[in-house]
Amino acid sequence: MHNILASVPAADAASGSYEALRTVRERTVALCRPLSAEDCVVQSAPETSPAKWHLAHTTWFFENFVLAPFVGDYRSFHPQFGYLFNSYYETVGSFHPRRDRGLLTRPSLEEIRAYRIHVDDRLADLLAAAPAEVSREISQRVTLGIHHEQQHQELILTDIKHLLASNPLRPAYRSAIEAGRDKAPAIVWLSFPSGLYEVGHAGESFAFDNEAPRHRRYLENFRIASRPVCNAEYVAFIDDGGYGNPALWLSDGWQTVKSQAWQAPLYWERRDGEWWQMTLAGMRPVDPAEPVCHVSYYEADAYARWAGKRLPSEFEWEVAASLYEQDGNFLDSGRLHPAPCGVEPRFFGDVWEWTQSPYVAYPGYRPSAGALGEYNGKFMVNQMVLRGGSCATPKSHVRPTYRNFFYPHDRWQFKGFRLADN
Amino acid sequence: MHNILASVPAADAASGSYEALRTVRERTVALCRPLSAEDCVVQSAPETSPAKWHLAHTTWFFENFVLAPFVGDYRSFHPQFGYLFNSYYETVGSFHPRRDRGLLTRPSLEEIRAYRIHVDDRLADLLAAAPAEVSREISQRVTLGIHHEQQHQELILTDIKHLLASNPLRPAYRSAIEAGRDKAPAIVWLSFPSGLYEVGHAGESFAFDNEAPRHRRYLENFRIASRPVCNAEYVAFIDDGGYGNPALWLSDGWQTVKSQAWQAPLYWERRDGEWWQMTLAGMRPVDPAEPVCHVSYYEADAYARWAGKRLPSEFEWEVAASLYEQDGNFLDSGRLHPAPCGVEPRFFGDVWEWTQSPYVAYPGYRPSAGALGEYNGKFMVNQMVLRGGSCATPKSHVRPTYRNFFYPHDRWQFKGFRLADN
Amino acid sequence: MHNILASVPAADAASGSYEALRTVRERTVALCRPLSAEDCVVQSAPETSPAKWHLAHTTWFFENFVLAPFVGDYRSFHPQFGYLFNSYYETVGSFHPRRDRGLLTRPSLEEIRAYRIHVDDRLADLLAAAPAEVSREISQRVTLGIHHEQQHQELILTDIKHLLASNPLRPAYRSAIEAGRDKAPAIVWLSFPSGLYEVGHAGESFAFDNEAPRHRRYLENFRIASRPVCNAEYVAFIDDGGYGNPALWLSDGWQTVKSQAWQAPLYWERRDGEWWQMTLAGMRPVDPAEPVCHVSYYEADAYARWAGKRLPSEFEWEVAASLYEQDGNFLDSGRLHPAPCGVEPRFFGDVWEWTQSPYVAYPGYRPSAGALGEYNGKFMVNQMVLRGGSCATPKSHVRPTYRNFFYPHDRWQFKGFRLADN
Amino acid sequence: MHNILASVPAADAASGSYEALRTVRERTVALCRPLSAEDCVVQSAPETSPAKWHLAHTTWFFENFVLAPFVGDYRSFHPQFGYLFNSYYETVGSFHPRRDRGLLTRPSLEEIRAYRIHVDDRLADLLAAAPAEVSREISQRVTLGIHHEQQHQELILTDIKHLLASNPLRPAYRSAIEAGRDKAPAIVWLSFPSGLYEVGHAGESFAFDNEAPRHRRYLENFRIASRPVCNAEYVAFIDDGGYGNPALWLSDGWQTVKSQAWQAPLYWERRDGEWWQMTLAGMRPVDPAEPVCHVSYYEADAYARWAGKRLPSEFEWEVAASLYEQDGNFLDSGRLHPAPCGVEPRFFGDVWEWTQSPYVAYPGYRPSAGALGEYNGKFMVNQMVLRGGSCATPKSHVRPTYRNFFYPHDRWQFKGFRLADN
Repeated sequence: MHNILASVPAADAASGSYEALRTVRERTVALCRPLSAEDCVVQSAPETSPAKWHLAHTTWFFENFVLAPFVGDYRSFHPQFGYLFNSYYETVGSFHPRRDRGLLTRPSLEEIRAYRIHVDDRLADLLAAAPAEVSREISQRVTLGIHHEQQHQELILTDIKHLLASNPLRPAYRSAIEAGRDKAPAIVWLSFPSGLYEVGHAGESFAFDNEAPRHRRYLENFRIASRPVCNAEYVAFIDDGGYGNPALWLSDGWQTVKSQAWQAPLYWERRDGEWWQMTLAGMRPVDPAEPVCHVSYYEADAYARWAGKRLPSEFEWEVAASLYEQDGNFLDSGRLHPAPCGVEPRFFGDVWEWTQSPYVAYPGYRPSAGALGEYNGKFMVNQMVLRGGSCATPKSHVRPTYRNFFYPHDRWQFKGFRLADN
Repeated sequence: MHNILASVPAADAASGSYEALRTVRERTVALCRPLSAEDCVVQSAPETSPAKWHLAHTTWFFENFVLAPFVGDYRSFHPQFGYLFNSYYETVGSFHPRRDRGLLTRPSLEEIRAYRIHVDDRLADLLAAAPAEVSREISQRVTLGIHHEQQHQELILTDIKHLLASNPLRPAYRSAIEAGRDKAPAIVWLSFPSGLYEVGHAGESFAFDNEAPRHRRYLENFRIASRPVCNAEYVAFIDDGGYGNPALWLSDGWQTVKSQAWQAPLYWERRDGEWWQMTLAGMRPVDPAEPVCHVSYYEADAYARWAGKRLPSEFEWEVAASLYEQDGNFLDSGRLHPAPCGVEPRFFGDVWEWTQSPYVAYPGYRPSAGALGEYNGKFMVNQMVLRGGSCATPKSHVRPTYRNFFYPHDRWQFKGFRLADN
Repeated sequence: MHNILASVPAADAASGSYEALRTVRERTVALCRPLSAEDCVVQSAPETSPAKWHLAHTTWFFENFVLAPFVGDYRSFHPQFGYLFNSYYETVGSFHPRRDRGLLTRPSLEEIRAYRIHVDDRLADLLAAAPAEVSREISQRVTLGIHHEQQHQELILTDIKHLLASNPLRPAYRSAIEAGRDKAPAIVWLSFPSGLYEVGHAGESFAFDNEAPRHRRYLENFRIASRPVCNAEYVAFIDDGGYGNPALWLSDGWQTVKSQAWQAPLYWERRDGEWWQMTLAGMRPVDPAEPVCHVSYYEADAYARWAGKRLPSEFEWEVAASLYEQDGNFLDSGRLHPAPCGVEPRFFGDVWEWTQSPYVAYPGYRPSAGALGEYNGKFMVNQMVLRGGSCATPKSHVRPTYRNFFYPHDRWQFKGFRLADN
Repeated sequence: MHNILASVPAADAASGSYEALRTVRERTVALCRPLSAEDCVVQSAPETSPAKWHLAHTTWFFENFVLAPFVGDYRSFHPQFGYLFNSYYETVGSFHPRRDRGLLTRPSLEEIRAYRIHVDDRLADLLAAAPAEVSREISQRVTLGIHHEQQHQELILTDIKHLLASNPLRPAYRSAIEAGRDKAPAIVWLSFPSGLYEVGHAGESFAFDNEAPRHRRYLENFRIASRPVCNAEYVAFIDDGGYGNPALWLSDGWQTVKSQAWQAPLYWERRDGEWWQMTLAGMRPVDPAEPVCHVSYYEADAYARWAGKRLPSEFEWEVAASLYEQDGNFLDSGRLHPAPCGVEPRFFGDVWEWTQSPYVAYPGYRPSAGALGEYNGKFMVNQMVLRGGSCATPKSHVRPTYRNFFYPHDRWQFKGFRLADN
């Protein structure tokens, strides 16, 4: 599996070239190869989507935003696919309700594969022959489509993990991953002085609209941990009664803990006094040195309070992370699970890291024009920013300025956190 | 398709013979042949089940109630199938929640087919060699299993219809069925004098425990219609504002009409001023002469009030139906849709008929011993009795004394009704 | 309190006389005397109503069904009271949603008292001077209004009990009632042979439309208990794990037990290993000899199965009860709580008794004409019949043929049950 | 009414003196004077509380946080009031569920008044005789209690408005307020250059912990409106189809608009083509010159997008507001409704103003120690900051640094907004 998952380099991913496009499109299909048609059709929660739907939606994205506007008299592959596979673009037209995506046993997986090939072929034709006056716009949209598809590659993995974990048989997507028994190295605290810092994206390289504009932030002096909180540390929080002590929790978090009866991260189970967890390789014991994963913002925040620390802001995180290489355990490694923490400071891969920053617009933010303006801007309320990418993120997809965002109660992505203080 | 759906004769169905068993088991598989693995795994509502689950559950029924008790050191095909495919037998053990049956992408459809073959083979061995002292008990349980499986054959069809109707593409299970344009012949009113009647099942032939004991009922004189209410008649009720007039409805029915925004039977859609309906052959216009189908008890009752009539009691229905041949449009015909009403009185097939009788125990009712006692008895509250069988019922499955039962708001079975008065 | 609660005799209650009317109207006011205005305005559950609402609704009933049609150019006391205090008569017009009855802090309790006096005065005028040609119709409607108001007298008590029990202070409506420690006398089994029996109401005396017509029922021979199941017996069921054994329960009942976490009758609490219960006199220990009270149909049915018996049908109950005096512990005694069972067979008072009979129409049932036809008929689905009246029922209100009805999960009325078998 | 509502000066409010305390405590009682006991007991929504509960809870606050710790062997007024009237202090002990506050018909309003007098008397004793070593701590807690009670004065008004608006009679709390017909003066745009600004509270004067510490923010240059958006402007948004155009809304906002069927601000009704609104003085036409009121964050944000502007951040708001007098239409005026906008820039009173800032901790924020640390800190997620105070806020209660916070969908407070841009 490793070869096919090897990522296109970031520069290529942003080139809008046919080569980059083809590599990414093929990888999406490769990710579904361990799955049966049955696995690809079922939706296990309202917030997840079937793999088949991801395969179709990413194709619709190119059809709707590239082929339809730039190929003269383009005819849709199927007249109702626009309705079925539009995710949430209200300005494009009405769409199938999100919670009902799992009802679509037709079109079949085979038909969706044919749909992909059809659209890929038309894209190849278009890119080979696009007139000069639109080729830059086409290239930009293809680049956006590539990054969009990379996001759905991660979702295919997190959604299929949710589905397999919902099955009492706890089936595996990939071969076993051994769980170590060692502790993680101690956290090193990285210090930064107060001052005006620049954050956000600038320049010609690809970034989503929500990363811009680059702008100044005044930060107080802060310290940030060299690595995320690991499982052994989190187990200490559990053992200390963390899930039963309201003084540690935000009010909304405490309501959630009680109403959902949370006692541990998502996918953890107690077996004979030991914690086990569901992974894409099936059930196995929790590895003490791996970053804790599948926690909500509420749990991250409660742990930090218990530890006498806090979560970093997204700006602190970005300032610190910018000093380090973007190395780490990404989708490309094929592990598809966080790896044990090492000695060297690391900010990328393994787990998306909750920050204490609500997801809002940067000063001067302007959403893209037209329907693509719905891509990021309309979600700027009620969600929190996560940074750094995970073991399910393509390496070429992330950047130090990259802003991911989820509701504070969401847990099904590969989410962890690191600590900060002043 | 017709040949494989040809029914085993009722006498054979109740023989507990291997021949009868094999015929029924093969038909279940045949019913799923037009379906893809994707079609077989999805659950479109909490009250429906995936076809794959039906295939597995009917197999578990034989494994649990025949093989396990009667085959020395029988080893389950899979240690967790008892948990996954037990429907509701609390005394057998805990079971997978009903609403989550659609999450089981594993075991695959192929594995379930292997499970069926495995159990069928063991059953063949057992039936060929059962010691005399248990063969009668085995034969009775096999007979029960056959009738149980016939019930699930109907559910496979009604559940798949619900799934396909939930798909905006409205795909078809079978080839097209033409819709006629003619009216149904007028209703003939069949009269019965008041008196003591005997109803219920007696004798050695197979019946469910809820049909017994045979007992006396005093009935006032009554008249009962020779055929169910047909679509043209029901459209007149709609056109007269039936769905907007609370005076016609039971209070609970009116709450349901308002909260569910019902305007017509399930699966009906208005297109350019004409009523269309989803069938197992896809969308087509409503045929005026066919019995109205997919209505709730509330709708049947409201129509009857509008028409100045009432629904028959289950005893009136049984007394009348016993005088007629058990002919009609059953699963065996392969039509899988109600057929236009004819001139001759007919009580069987086409649509299950709502009666005004709540589903309760007959005087002296005794549920079967052990877990099989949960088969019928524990549902004797909140449901209404339906009689006669439908176009999705195997012909050999029904009898004049047969009592089907559903909640008054349920509509996804093939349900209609006929009128009565005094 | 006793004097004012002394009932009008049944014959008078049905006389439609001004004397009878005045007695009943005054008693309703008297029942609210121990309550503050605050107590009278709050609604503690969607199925209960504030006492003030009962005071107003019973008045509206007379205004709408007697004054409006029979007093020339009658002008409503308040133009919006028809909207506010119509309970559910769809054919009269739209009405305030049931769940919002507790939002009506205005009109004040004082205004409602003035409304009552206004309507009572107009009724006195009307009854004194009604022309002969309508006096019979008026008298019938006044009689209906009297019985309607008696029903609401019971509801005032059960609804206020629910409210006071919802208060952590567990305040009392009346002075303390001692709890005895003795057992109840043993049950005597009363036997009846099989045969055709007549049941239902006939004749000129007052009855609700749902008690008619009198008709024949064929009953198998049966035995029925001389008294309801008492607390000591019910505690044995609890102690034997009755609430944890699914084999004893109807399927819908078992779902309810689990989802509502029922462990005992409503209003029971475990304190230091002993069962206490909320009464209209506040909290006190459970008296072993009193009939068990505030149980659902599901609990009654489960107990009966545990005891190897069954519940009687409403017809068996009526046949047996007709042989006994209508004596018992009614509202009129002022105890407002079931009294310990005695030696003599008794069928009336203390607790309404669940029967195994769903609430449906008798053969030939005709609802009253017009809006009053909504009084009983539209509730004939999903509910079960209870018989006999309770400690909160006016004695003159019940009859052997009287049919009360509630949903099988309802518990807030004074409901118990007795056993039967064959 | 005006005299009694005249506010204690801000300096006094923060003095912790008995005079200040008494003034505030008396005003709370005065606010309830137009209400009946019935009005004071009912809870019209899970997020509102009965006036009686506010009267009791503010008293419990002093009893629990001042009397209990500082009066030797203090005995609670009632052993269960701690349970009943603790709002949400988990570290103090368990408490009555918020949604059930309206069930407490007992203790009566009279008893709560006695409770207030009892606690006030003990406070007077304590303040007169507190030993020097604790008098500062006592004084600080009394000051906090005063500000806490001022918050509940506002809630009494907003909650009673919600209750009266839920009543089809639309009763009034105070005498009529005329609605003008004139337009508001044009908005003036106030400009500020980019730079490092200081925001937040510092110094000895009273402020809540969430206003501190004072710290630096780098702001881009911005413009801010001299007044809130007024009704005439908002009606133009409605008339332009604002509530039907998803492109204007945040995604969560659009879901809310659809699921709640919002078409206008809370309390607005269309009558004969004109907009009317519920006020504390009853129903009256919408005044074009008044600030729009009772809108959610979603509506404020959608309006701003429609107008081509944005909402200010809480820091922009504070920087601008600090330049102006804290004059305006507060609770003290007795109008209890926003007043028409004038020509002069004004930042205080009339309506709380939504900002685009999520409610989070300032850098270096430290919650107070002990249970009082739950006052503000545990709500720092999912809510948005509002600034400036409203027509229901005591004048001495607010400051330029004051941060109010509510969920983005909340509308029942007096909430409006002003625009900003760059």
